[in-house]
Amino acid sequence: MTQKIFTSRQTHIDAATIAPLPASRKIYVTGSRADIRVPMREIAQADTPAANGNEKNPPIFVYDCSGPYTDPHANIDIRSGLAPLRAAWITERGDTEQLIAADSVDGRQRSVDTVSDTPHFNAQHKPRRAKAGANVTQMHYARQGIITPEMEFVAIRENVNRRAYLESLKACGPNGAKMAAFMGRRHAGQAFGADIPDEITPEFVRREIARGRAIIPANINHPEAEPMIIGRHFLTKINANIGNSALGSSIREEVDKLLWSIRWGGDTVMDLSTGKHIHETREWILRNAPVPIGTVPIYQALEKVGGKAEELTWDIFRDTLIEQAEQGVDYFTIHAGVLLRYVPMTANRMTGIVSRGGSIMAKWCLAHHKESFLYTHFEDICEIMKQYDVAFSLGDGLRPGSVWDANDEAQLAELKTLGELTDIAWKHDVQVMIEGPGHVPMQLIKENVELQQDWCKEAPFYTLGPLVTDIAPGYDHITSAIGAAQIGWYGTAMLCYVTPKEHLGLPDKEDVKTGIITYKIAAHAADLAKGHPAAQLRDNALSKARFEFRWEDQFNLGLDPDTARAYHDATLPQEGAKVAHFCSMCGPHFCSMKITQDVRDFAASQGIKEQEALNKGMESKAAEFVKEGVEIYRKM
Amino acid sequence: MTQKIFTSRQTHIDAATIAPLPASRKIYVTGSRADIRVPMREIAQADTPAANGNEKNPPIFVYDCSGPYTDPHANIDIRSGLAPLRAAWITERGDTEQLIAADSVDGRQRSVDTVSDTPHFNAQHKPRRAKAGANVTQMHYARQGIITPEMEFVAIRENVNRRAYLESLKACGPNGAKMAAFMGRRHAGQAFGADIPDEITPEFVRREIARGRAIIPANINHPEAEPMIIGRHFLTKINANIGNSALGSSIREEVDKLLWSIRWGGDTVMDLSTGKHIHETREWILRNAPVPIGTVPIYQALEKVGGKAEELTWDIFRDTLIEQAEQGVDYFTIHAGVLLRYVPMTANRMTGIVSRGGSIMAKWCLAHHKESFLYTHFEDICEIMKQYDVAFSLGDGLRPGSVWDANDEAQLAELKTLGELTDIAWKHDVQVMIEGPGHVPMQLIKENVELQQDWCKEAPFYTLGPLVTDIAPGYDHITSAIGAAQIGWYGTAMLCYVTPKEHLGLPDKEDVKTGIITYKIAAHAADLAKGHPAAQLRDNALSKARFEFRWEDQFNLGLDPDTARAYHDATLPQEGAKVAHFCSMCGPHFCSMKITQDVRDFAASQGIKEQEALNKGMESKAAEFVKEGVEIYRKM
Repeated sequence: MTQKIFTSRQTHIDAATIAPLPASRKIYVTGSRADIRVPMREIAQADTPAANGNEKNPPIFVYDCSGPYTDPHANIDIRSGLAPLRAAWITERGDTEQLIAADSVDGRQRSVDTVSDTPHFNAQHKPRRAKAGANVTQMHYARQGIITPEMEFVAIRENVNRRAYLESLKACGPNGAKMAAFMGRRHAGQAFGADIPDEITPEFVRREIARGRAIIPANINHPEAEPMIIGRHFLTKINANIGNSALGSSIREEVDKLLWSIRWGGDTVMDLSTGKHIHETREWILRNAPVPIGTVPIYQALEKVGGKAEELTWDIFRDTLIEQAEQGVDYFTIHAGVLLRYVPMTANRMTGIVSRGGSIMAKWCLAHHKESFLYTHFEDICEIMKQYDVAFSLGDGLRPGSVWDANDEAQLAELKTLGELTDIAWKHDVQVMIEGPGHVPMQLIKENVELQQDWCKEAPFYTLGPLVTDIAPGYDHITSAIGAAQIGWYGTAMLCYVTPKEHLGLPDKEDVKTGIITYKIAAHAADLAKGHPAAQLRDNALSKARFEFRWEDQFNLGLDPDTARAYHDATLPQEGAKVAHFCSMCGPHFCSMKITQDVRDFAASQGIKEQEALNKGMESKAAEFVKEGVEIYRKM
Repeated sequence: MTQKIFTSRQTHIDAATIAPLPASRKIYVTGSRADIRVPMREIAQADTPAANGNEKNPPIFVYDCSGPYTDPHANIDIRSGLAPLRAAWITERGDTEQLIAADSVDGRQRSVDTVSDTPHFNAQHKPRRAKAGANVTQMHYARQGIITPEMEFVAIRENVNRRAYLESLKACGPNGAKMAAFMGRRHAGQAFGADIPDEITPEFVRREIARGRAIIPANINHPEAEPMIIGRHFLTKINANIGNSALGSSIREEVDKLLWSIRWGGDTVMDLSTGKHIHETREWILRNAPVPIGTVPIYQALEKVGGKAEELTWDIFRDTLIEQAEQGVDYFTIHAGVLLRYVPMTANRMTGIVSRGGSIMAKWCLAHHKESFLYTHFEDICEIMKQYDVAFSLGDGLRPGSVWDANDEAQLAELKTLGELTDIAWKHDVQVMIEGPGHVPMQLIKENVELQQDWCKEAPFYTLGPLVTDIAPGYDHITSAIGAAQIGWYGTAMLCYVTPKEHLGLPDKEDVKTGIITYKIAAHAADLAKGHPAAQLRDNALSKARFEFRWEDQFNLGLDPDTARAYHDATLPQEGAKVAHFCSMCGPHFCSMKITQDVRDFAASQGIKEQEALNKGMESKAAEFVKEGVEIYRKM
């Protein structure tokens, strides 16, 4: 353990936030070059108990967003930030340069300004930018036929070491091959037109990015981030929103929420801060984030004009974009689809405009009675994006805020405009994803994906939920996970989480975890339904552990081992009970799992292996079964 | 307040379990005769704040399962049980008789046996039975063309006073009619072949029951229960499982869980007790249950043979059925579809047989090598059911216990047999519903409903979840709610809840509530998606309250006002904040709801009512809007 945990008030990390998960260790799969080291989490499993066959259960691998934090060999110092994993890849491309000073007015100002109550970084981040005329987006490289290290990284990552797990199963004794076939079983997916390959190759990644059907959000100024891919042919991703507000929390708390989010599986994190120290908060988050960071730049721009939407200008917004691009933000939500003529379409809605960015822009449009600078300067924005490789997340400013407002004229008019803007961005080789709703009853969800895929030419869809009913404040992580699982199945590439506090208050750390786990469930359910080849292994492994009463493995293979263990221990706290052949739900006489195991044991003990033999021999074996039945509840 | 709350250790009811919900009162809608009094919950709403138009918001009505408990005018004494609401309806039909003593051996025995540590009832329940040759099922009456009071009761109940609410809206001043149209807006459903009428009539109920497409579980020995209907053309219902086990809880705790379940919306409750005092526990539950109670009689039969499945006999089982029918159980789970030849189909499963009843019967079949008495005596069982009007819940003993096992040969073979048994039951005019899985990935859910509806001729489907992934122990209320919402949408009539403790331990009271609320969400989402006419009113009312910052109404209209209020108060505890024009999520500058309200106010203040006028006039009004903008954040 060389991991350092700082204990000063401002930079303390709770040990529980970064400790390895139970029975887990961080491994790295190396790519074609030594500095492509793709992190995964390896979960160790116990052997099957002797009574059930004494099988080896090799470790299984899962996708890991937690970065170096859960690696005890990593040096963690949040005052210095993470190591710049991608620095060499960026510099060796030779198409960027380090700036002497920030280019944005605000960036320059902040770099010399010491905020009294905020600790500064040990090292100053020096921004990079594309050389004059260069385009440094992953889409640009992909379209040139270049497979970047980032593309290879995500290809390895998406396979989640599935083949290695099955190979190690095969190596487990004489029944290994049979066991690998057993554990590798999976249902055919229903992927609504997508065609998910059995193995993700770097070339497949390149093609998807070139086609605009996937993005790798990877600002050259955020070299700390481990590359990840968002697209419907890949694992469904989830985003966690953090950020303070005027009423909210400290920088330390936001960094803590970041680490907590990625520990439980947040693939990207959006910093939606609106309060004080917006620049400094973002700097701390970016320098410590191994995942892509998204923002809504209009929030900060609005702070700069004292909260008066009508006083926003292109110059202020432009400077904010550059400031944030220089810091390393990987994707920007830009509400460029809120057009003046769409605003009156919301007048008869149940809940009007509920997107913060959307309402800011609607107000601006009305106050000036013209199209917003986001729309009129869209090509200028593209010029900025391609100098840093910031991806667009084209915001759905007119998304519905209630199930009645779903799929209405305003929402769909904006979506069509987002499709037109996608074309413009792609002309500049700028990566794009499209934001979606929101609040949608189940029968209207599919139409959202179909229209988005059609009008936005399969650019990745990134939705907030959707909530499928409005009647459960306090449980909107659940109302929305129902919609999120479905929209993910239909082809949405990333799901923005919703916490239990949605509509009610600011989420605390526990809410963040609940939101993340709930959305991991939705995303994984979508991956199963799409038929992603790496998805079902984990379900199978956990189900096998359950069937064999390997309680510890059942906990450890789950999304939240701590909660599963605590729930189990609340009824049966004794360590011994974890290998007992009954569970507390049913009591010893009712353990259907055990009874079935007896049936199987009986078949095995009689040497009956084929179904036909089992059928044929059953009559004569009935008496023996009864005789053996007296041993049904034998102790482990 | 004449409500009595007993405080002795054994019969104490927690006041929080039976107090009226916030801003709610119990109302009764009277039918064609004075003793048809259909309970509903009326939720009062505040007026829209003056700044937003000062509109009246009349009370809204919601379906209410909580029985007399939440009525402060009711006398509650759990030692005496509830008043026999249906007694007159049953006796006046003249086709039943009261027995001098219980007909079942065990029933007779228990009635004279004083269990030392269990309090007895003040009054002895005297069982009724059909007169010789009579058939007393609701299906039998329906097929004779008789509309029973029970049918009228459920018809009134299903309409949830929707029309009364809209009428009271119309009466709210000059804009009433417009407001009624506004609040009554709903999306067309996608009901997969179902045709849900705008208004449920008693005759429609009768036809659905006669057709076998819906059931009213209503044992003549459970006259305390308020009639409810289960069928795909009606509101989606949910069931809560309670019951103690060998490791489990006391009778008092089980009654407490019953009351807690119905408080939060459990439509039926299954008593799955397997421990001691199984008869007495059930008696307490039945006598105090205003909802139908289901059981799995094989659990008690197994207790009678010391837990040895192979020693079960038809005589023991038959006596158990009669014992429970005489007590008043409204539906029996009977695993008659577990045939000998299906058992080997489970040998290669990931998780074998996970249904307790299924594994008991599988073991019996193997031990005797013949078909079970449930199957061979199925017509005899029907003869019993029709003498008390106990409904079948034909159990899915071979349901999958992991996503891999979903929709496999064993499961579908049993389902087909359940379809054949449905025909036999219907020949006897016995009501039937069909149990379904379990664990099913999303892309395989629809097939379950399609096959069930086809093979079981549209008998109501009643599923457990299904869980759409196995990787989240501790969160299986969520993994299963995702599946439950979908399967409900596709046509499942009742959803059996799953609590966070599923697979891990026995649920406590908090888990029961979480399970219920989660399943109310799934059921309501399904009703919205099917296009049930009464569903969307509540979403609209809550959304309007949200838009108008009526915080208290937003809490009270939700499924769990207490939790919503607590979450809100955690960030903004001051009472005043509840009418302030911003929420803690965004801070005052970012309140998109408020900004949109400003846009709407502006349009209204300019007398612009039509969209065209709004469009046309906008240009000249831009300056005024800016001027008015300075008042955007005015305080309430």
